[in-house]
Amino acid sequence: MAVPPGVSEREWADALKQFQQALGSGGVFTSDEDVALYRDFYSPLWGEAEERVASAALAPDTADQVQQIVRIANTSRIPLYSIATGRNLGYGGSAPNLAGSVVLDLKRMNRVLEVDDKRHFAIVEPGVSYFDFYRHIQDRGLNVWIDCPDPGWGSVIGNALDHGVGYTWGAFRDHFHSHCGMEVVLPNGEFLRTGMGAVPGSRTWAEYRYGYGPYVDGLFSQGNFGVVTKMGFWLFPAPETYLSGTVTVPKRADIVPLVDIVNYLEHAGTIGMPRYGSPLGQVRDQELADLVAQPGGPSTDDLDAFAARRGVAAWECKLQFYGGAEVVAAQWAYAREKLSVIAGARFEDTEFYRFPLTAEQAERAHKVALGIPNLSIFAGGARSELNPSPRDGHVFFAPVIPKSGRAILDAMQVFNPVVREVGFPNMVSFFKAPNTWMFRAFVFLYSFPISRSDRAQNRRVREAFPRLVRAAAERGWGEYRTPPVFQDLVMDAYSFNNHALRRFSETLKDAVDPNGILSAGRGGIWPRHLRNTRG
Amino acid sequence: MAVPPGVSEREWADALKQFQQALGSGGVFTSDEDVALYRDFYSPLWGEAEERVASAALAPDTADQVQQIVRIANTSRIPLYSIATGRNLGYGGSAPNLAGSVVLDLKRMNRVLEVDDKRHFAIVEPGVSYFDFYRHIQDRGLNVWIDCPDPGWGSVIGNALDHGVGYTWGAFRDHFHSHCGMEVVLPNGEFLRTGMGAVPGSRTWAEYRYGYGPYVDGLFSQGNFGVVTKMGFWLFPAPETYLSGTVTVPKRADIVPLVDIVNYLEHAGTIGMPRYGSPLGQVRDQELADLVAQPGGPSTDDLDAFAARRGVAAWECKLQFYGGAEVVAAQWAYAREKLSVIAGARFEDTEFYRFPLTAEQAERAHKVALGIPNLSIFAGGARSELNPSPRDGHVFFAPVIPKSGRAILDAMQVFNPVVREVGFPNMVSFFKAPNTWMFRAFVFLYSFPISRSDRAQNRRVREAFPRLVRAAAERGWGEYRTPPVFQDLVMDAYSFNNHALRRFSETLKDAVDPNGILSAGRGGIWPRHLRNTRG
Repeated sequence: MAVPPGVSEREWADALKQFQQALGSGGVFTSDEDVALYRDFYSPLWGEAEERVASAALAPDTADQVQQIVRIANTSRIPLYSIATGRNLGYGGSAPNLAGSVVLDLKRMNRVLEVDDKRHFAIVEPGVSYFDFYRHIQDRGLNVWIDCPDPGWGSVIGNALDHGVGYTWGAFRDHFHSHCGMEVVLPNGEFLRTGMGAVPGSRTWAEYRYGYGPYVDGLFSQGNFGVVTKMGFWLFPAPETYLSGTVTVPKRADIVPLVDIVNYLEHAGTIGMPRYGSPLGQVRDQELADLVAQPGGPSTDDLDAFAARRGVAAWECKLQFYGGAEVVAAQWAYAREKLSVIAGARFEDTEFYRFPLTAEQAERAHKVALGIPNLSIFAGGARSELNPSPRDGHVFFAPVIPKSGRAILDAMQVFNPVVREVGFPNMVSFFKAPNTWMFRAFVFLYSFPISRSDRAQNRRVREAFPRLVRAAAERGWGEYRTPPVFQDLVMDAYSFNNHALRRFSETLKDAVDPNGILSAGRGGIWPRHLRNTRG
Repeated sequence: MAVPPGVSEREWADALKQFQQALGSGGVFTSDEDVALYRDFYSPLWGEAEERVASAALAPDTADQVQQIVRIANTSRIPLYSIATGRNLGYGGSAPNLAGSVVLDLKRMNRVLEVDDKRHFAIVEPGVSYFDFYRHIQDRGLNVWIDCPDPGWGSVIGNALDHGVGYTWGAFRDHFHSHCGMEVVLPNGEFLRTGMGAVPGSRTWAEYRYGYGPYVDGLFSQGNFGVVTKMGFWLFPAPETYLSGTVTVPKRADIVPLVDIVNYLEHAGTIGMPRYGSPLGQVRDQELADLVAQPGGPSTDDLDAFAARRGVAAWECKLQFYGGAEVVAAQWAYAREKLSVIAGARFEDTEFYRFPLTAEQAERAHKVALGIPNLSIFAGGARSELNPSPRDGHVFFAPVIPKSGRAILDAMQVFNPVVREVGFPNMVSFFKAPNTWMFRAFVFLYSFPISRSDRAQNRRVREAFPRLVRAAAERGWGEYRTPPVFQDLVMDAYSFNNHALRRFSETLKDAVDPNGILSAGRGGIWPRHLRNTRG
């Protein structure tokens, strides 16, 4: 049995006894096979000495039990690492920053405490997955949607706290931004309620976010200032219909006006999430491959000429509308009118659904765009006739870039050479489209393959990361989210004034968690006694 | 010349010398007549010994000067109180929580640093007023709107930091919520940049709010953790047209379905800010006055019968739409369809504007709904034939209540008896409509009159406040904003777990500002050495 760092075997045995008293033996996991379940199955350090594995896990059922755990840990100086459902795959899974931490696993706390479909909010516990949340709403016929990320098994709270994102309307896709009110167990074991939740008997917990005085909620996201045990969220009132339409533009440089116009439509509230792509990038053809293989990459003129000859568009954008049937039709007509200023723009009606969906529609639809959690994202990487050698996993490199067409073209120029040099030539693309989950910025996502048998490949990934992060930082870009093994690296780029932001957060950390027991290292924030071990 | 608390005359003279070196003599104000300009002209303690007046004022022109001031103050233990333009009338003006503080007046720092009308954001300094901001945009013909509160002379940053609110689209009305990225001078004199601004040479400062790691921005709102010297804001892309329409419903209880349906429309993004009112409450008639004067208030049946006889609606709501002409028409049609389920609902087309406005339209319009800053709100209280005895000022009691019709009716029941008992019978209303500035909650606004000659009236206001705050807290409601003299009182209601929220913030305060020099008491947060003086 592993012993957490910084404690003796005897102290650990004593703490375990206390944890068992608090949780019962069914809530304390110390066997190798149990603890192995908390490894990050997508770890780029899989099986190596440096892999960050937990020493044990604790699974409370109630917030009171969380409080007891934190109190025991604080007294005994046991390092805890809190997770919700532990599904943060590609960004660290359920494994800690600090090897030997005890995972505080909140997945048993899976109660949906309240859903109001007149005021459109919910209050949930951290173990509530998107599946749980959706089923709760569907079973009761409530008139609200959720906004979910690709994999539906993740935690609503956990995703929000890691600044996770979704697929519907701008106001709801930023999951932390659409939260309202929290209950937290602080590192000293005290309960804190934020916002209006701090008023005893509060009636507006999930309606007004600030309450009174300094607004502290942000500290509990991508950080280690407390264990969130309840959280309110604003919900999307269920729309009556969904319409999508696709615009294509012929030339490579058309991405610049395309983004400008789509920005206008989205920021003004006319459309939901736009989805960019490159039809040209889908063409499998030797002539195009030769163009792309030119030293320094393809010329814009060559690409445009090729695209014109083949009648393929350089770029496309799928626009999505939610609302009354006549409203979405008018919005789509308006969008077409605005986009028609781009010479050669073409339009296609893509989908129209009136809710509730038929079973056939639900099967065919892009489910997350309709707030329906699912796991189909994993199908793309699963073993199949088309993909006989699926990856074991992946880690995401996710730089935030400006919301402009120019930045899209720039990003490929910046990252392609690095991706090629570090040994992933198949990931070089001149047709990469940005992800649009965030309301006001693009994020350029690279999914690097992880292997549980090929350490050399994992090492290449680990070597690639610092170069990519630096290439981004040189452009004034930074990443929004990353696995524990790269969190210090990513935070390093946020270095204005000799890392003032990190130093500020660590000053706060020392004040709130003087023993440094909670999720040491998360978000690049280390407690004082471990600061010299920063990666 | 007044001396700040906690320093000797000699230390003060020495600090003043240093301030003068940093700012030049034109940046340091110590004469009685200069310092008097920083009094809260709406203070409920006007002219009394307890009035909280500053000892001096400092007016830097640059962030570097702010840094120098803070460093001097930190070394010399001079209490500072930072203001932006100092126009927070009704919520404290420019006067400090701690009497004798030195006002740090940022109004000279009034540069609009960047406006991007393709990505729809701006970065501004704290002295930029809504007028400044609007003119900057208009002069350059930029395709963005601002969202402003009623008085246009306030600071864009100052308003956001006090959780101020506006009038257009839900995503922009909450001014702090629509901010993105900050530069702050911390109490130790260090510069901090948050969010993407922490990446040197950042390109997405005002596009992605979180950056990486704990999200600390909220601490700088309604608090005293630093002096904000730059701040990014998301802007509303200028819409092509504006349409408004009004729905009226006949019966008092119709407010319940009315709010439910309007909530649906607003939260789904179909409408901008709704504005509720009561046509019945506008009727001046003895019969109605007699109904209202009944002990215990009017009966619903009596009011409904009266309203039906007179053909007056109990409630109305003005709906506002922004976008393409065909889109807003479809949205209004959709809204009418939804609202028609309320028996007797009637609809009236109110306004339609295509931008740019004609001069005549601009004059007639409700300007703030169109993002046009102005000062017309003051006209309502100005001296005129109709109003020969204008108030000297007012303080706002502003409880946040649930976004439901039932809560509106409840709020009048809760507050009317208290308002009457404390001696403001003219403010009792059975027809009061909520303010709808916040996206997801109502706020019920009471404006208590302040006099600069009648101390007895001011005392009545001061006596009324605790009773109102308690009446709200008993219902689980709290206030969102309040003048310094009531900030401890308001914060007291956010008392969950023995004031855990306040204690948490004060733990952070001690860590960040160990000498307690910055804006002591703001938001109910006091530094350690003054905590026992809490009101």
